[in-house]
Amino acid sequence: MPSPTKEEILHQWPCIGIVGAGSMGSQMAVAFAEIGLHVSIWDVNEQNVDSVAELVRTNSVKGQISTFHEIDPFVESVQKENSGKLFLFSISHGDPADSVLGMIKEKLGKGDIILDGGNEHYRRTQRRQKECAKLGVHWIGMGVSGGYQAARRGPSLSPGGDAGALEKVMPLLRLYAAKDLHGKPCVTRIGPDGAGHYVKMVHNSIEGGMLSALAEAWSFLTQGLGLNYEDIANIFERWNTSGELHGNYLLEIAVDMLRTKKSVNGKPHYILDEVLDKVVQDDDDTEGTPHWAIEESAARHVSSPTLAAAHYLRVASGNRAERLEGLELIQRASDDENWDIDLTECLRIWRGGCIIRSDGIADLIEPIVSSKKGWSNLKHAPQIARELSRTYNPLKTIVLKGVLHDQYLPAISATLEYLKYVHGTRLPTQFMEGQMDFFGSHGYNKPGVPGEDPGPVAKGPHHYEWRPADA
Amino acid sequence: MPSPTKEEILHQWPCIGIVGAGSMGSQMAVAFAEIGLHVSIWDVNEQNVDSVAELVRTNSVKGQISTFHEIDPFVESVQKENSGKLFLFSISHGDPADSVLGMIKEKLGKGDIILDGGNEHYRRTQRRQKECAKLGVHWIGMGVSGGYQAARRGPSLSPGGDAGALEKVMPLLRLYAAKDLHGKPCVTRIGPDGAGHYVKMVHNSIEGGMLSALAEAWSFLTQGLGLNYEDIANIFERWNTSGELHGNYLLEIAVDMLRTKKSVNGKPHYILDEVLDKVVQDDDDTEGTPHWAIEESAARHVSSPTLAAAHYLRVASGNRAERLEGLELIQRASDDENWDIDLTECLRIWRGGCIIRSDGIADLIEPIVSSKKGWSNLKHAPQIARELSRTYNPLKTIVLKGVLHDQYLPAISATLEYLKYVHGTRLPTQFMEGQMDFFGSHGYNKPGVPGEDPGPVAKGPHHYEWRPADA
Repeated sequence: MPSPTKEEILHQWPCIGIVGAGSMGSQMAVAFAEIGLHVSIWDVNEQNVDSVAELVRTNSVKGQISTFHEIDPFVESVQKENSGKLFLFSISHGDPADSVLGMIKEKLGKGDIILDGGNEHYRRTQRRQKECAKLGVHWIGMGVSGGYQAARRGPSLSPGGDAGALEKVMPLLRLYAAKDLHGKPCVTRIGPDGAGHYVKMVHNSIEGGMLSALAEAWSFLTQGLGLNYEDIANIFERWNTSGELHGNYLLEIAVDMLRTKKSVNGKPHYILDEVLDKVVQDDDDTEGTPHWAIEESAARHVSSPTLAAAHYLRVASGNRAERLEGLELIQRASDDENWDIDLTECLRIWRGGCIIRSDGIADLIEPIVSSKKGWSNLKHAPQIARELSRTYNPLKTIVLKGVLHDQYLPAISATLEYLKYVHGTRLPTQFMEGQMDFFGSHGYNKPGVPGEDPGPVAKGPHHYEWRPADA
Repeated sequence: MPSPTKEEILHQWPCIGIVGAGSMGSQMAVAFAEIGLHVSIWDVNEQNVDSVAELVRTNSVKGQISTFHEIDPFVESVQKENSGKLFLFSISHGDPADSVLGMIKEKLGKGDIILDGGNEHYRRTQRRQKECAKLGVHWIGMGVSGGYQAARRGPSLSPGGDAGALEKVMPLLRLYAAKDLHGKPCVTRIGPDGAGHYVKMVHNSIEGGMLSALAEAWSFLTQGLGLNYEDIANIFERWNTSGELHGNYLLEIAVDMLRTKKSVNGKPHYILDEVLDKVVQDDDDTEGTPHWAIEESAARHVSSPTLAAAHYLRVASGNRAERLEGLELIQRASDDENWDIDLTECLRIWRGGCIIRSDGIADLIEPIVSSKKGWSNLKHAPQIARELSRTYNPLKTIVLKGVLHDQYLPAISATLEYLKYVHGTRLPTQFMEGQMDFFGSHGYNKPGVPGEDPGPVAKGPHHYEWRPADA
């Protein structure tokens, strides 16, 4: 069967309704309009809707995008001639999708298709698929990778769900998707159920591992070897030109990021130096995929130490002041669940009978814990800080000798790294945060700015347009 | 209020019904009989019941323990004079507890108390608490730490649940529990709901971190420095006598384990050398706590890299042949959920648009993946093995220099460690498996024994009584 022509595709899909006018949704609106669809766009936040209107004010596709403050006329505006209505959700995971689905449910009809392009947990996607199936509506969980930059130019798409529904919409997705080296569209039906969102979750976790390795390399080169950003950009450019890292997107944008500067009093001022080393979207739960992937790797018994190491660095960077391994997990759960657990008692009952009893360590910790209920960071107590400082060099020596002689040190070296980063004042996450702002418009905090450094665990207010998406 | 005397406690609790006659349940039966209770014990597996009968045949408490093959007379045998019936569950997490609860539910009455001493997920505990509360029955989720050795001599107990019910049973638990250095019983009400099982989960995860660090130290000393087991036992003994590791239980049993030998043809033969480096209870799901703790640390945004590193080493040791990071998670989920995901297509759609695109790496992997659907271990493909071997030394050099100069390398060093252990032939988990058999009677495989090495991911058939619990 020959692939349908663009005209045939536009005949079947003359319009699309986009829910969510954030950085992704607004760029997708422009992209679909450029393909030739009529785009309706709505967001619960009216300011986001107005920003889209402003964005396309001088754009050639202006006439093909209708913006809506009210949801009912938005739903009605998505015409239904040759097939069901087509919606694309680009909103936060969790409750928002349920909320919007609840608002539009009564207006949906048999054959309508909703592409959920957010990063959603696959179990929730599966629940919504069942809920929609009762109405004859198809809910497709679709990974959209590439950030807001790719949302405009064509992202990588990983849809999962009902095969028949996906077959209908696939020609349109092929038009929209990025193309690989052979010109083939970067979209495929991953599988049924939540398979598409599952694959996107793994993708994002791999992304987290890559981001961390690269940020660590940058930190080593700049702080360890004292290279300047130009030198590092040149090195990264070379890595990205030939060898195993050639054609690596994160390296490519890293080069641009390192070269992005403005001149202040005749001296180059790097934008990257404005970025605080604080990645918060795990802590504030706006991003779920990295921690879901860790949960999945644990639940399915798959070793993924690199991904976990990268994730725990990010988490610690977001809210360093509160980090404390092990017992902090109990404190956190106790707070979340209102259990009012007494940590002193936990320590005491672990002193006899149990497997982890360790008098020397308990002697050290107990007086500190019992002196102060609701303590947050044991590592900052003077006695503990002194012990950690005393044992740092011996621990380092063990890791050095062990690595030199190819010994196994997964937990011991992870501990050394942890001790470094929980006390670090300028973490590699500075670079990571810059990259995430580059491709994802994540927003960052600035060092030294009151209210930001130190500041709450919340999305930073600054975004730099490192490489304008419209360029 | 003065604490009740032993007579008063026994008057209130003349008997207890133990469900589960495995290594923990049977030792608890003896322990409660020694306190003076009449113990009824039942297990779905009649052989376990008969083993208890055999175990106490010549024991002085013989007359105080009644064994049951049938559950109804077992439940009826637990007398109810001054308060509700008291049960102690010591069975596997998950379905078994629900199944037994279903069998005995109709015979339970208001005020009855069930102590669930298994390692259960706290959410399941909370579900059962609600289910039982409807009948006026109190379900207490209680961590029991110390392994079968401590089950006999007195474990550390972390019960959680209804305060009133726990107050009634606490005097008995205080009698049974281990005593700390000041003679105080190692038991406290942790909190409501599943708080007790939650704390036990964290305890087990800390145990996993300690086990790994110690196993890594042993591996370094024996394989790296070439020390013999006697020398290592002496070193561990010294560590355990003074300094920060004094009074550490795992070190204490490590000393005993390293000295446990039999003489074969006049030469010492160490039992530890009979233990294969394969820890399987995560993979076969008999033990849930370590991976639940990782899931919880991810979900609650707490950095726990040491615990995760230790866990992933264990998981990889259990089933090395199948390990593959990242993409393996997709393959595993695809198999579990019947999604039939095509990994070649996953790789292809990640070549354009998306954040993790990396042509050099994709060029390397794609031909291997596409040549063989259902491939399991990419790392063993010749092209990949060659690349990994070529890049191992450069990676090692980076980690060495980075550690030396205090650079941040969490993800990079985790990757180096991962590459070592997924290709390792004698992992530190040999020592860990020995320790777990020592305190938990976990059972091990032997190296070189057909059907065991290599063998299925299943509990090993061998147990050595390193330090007899009755001694």
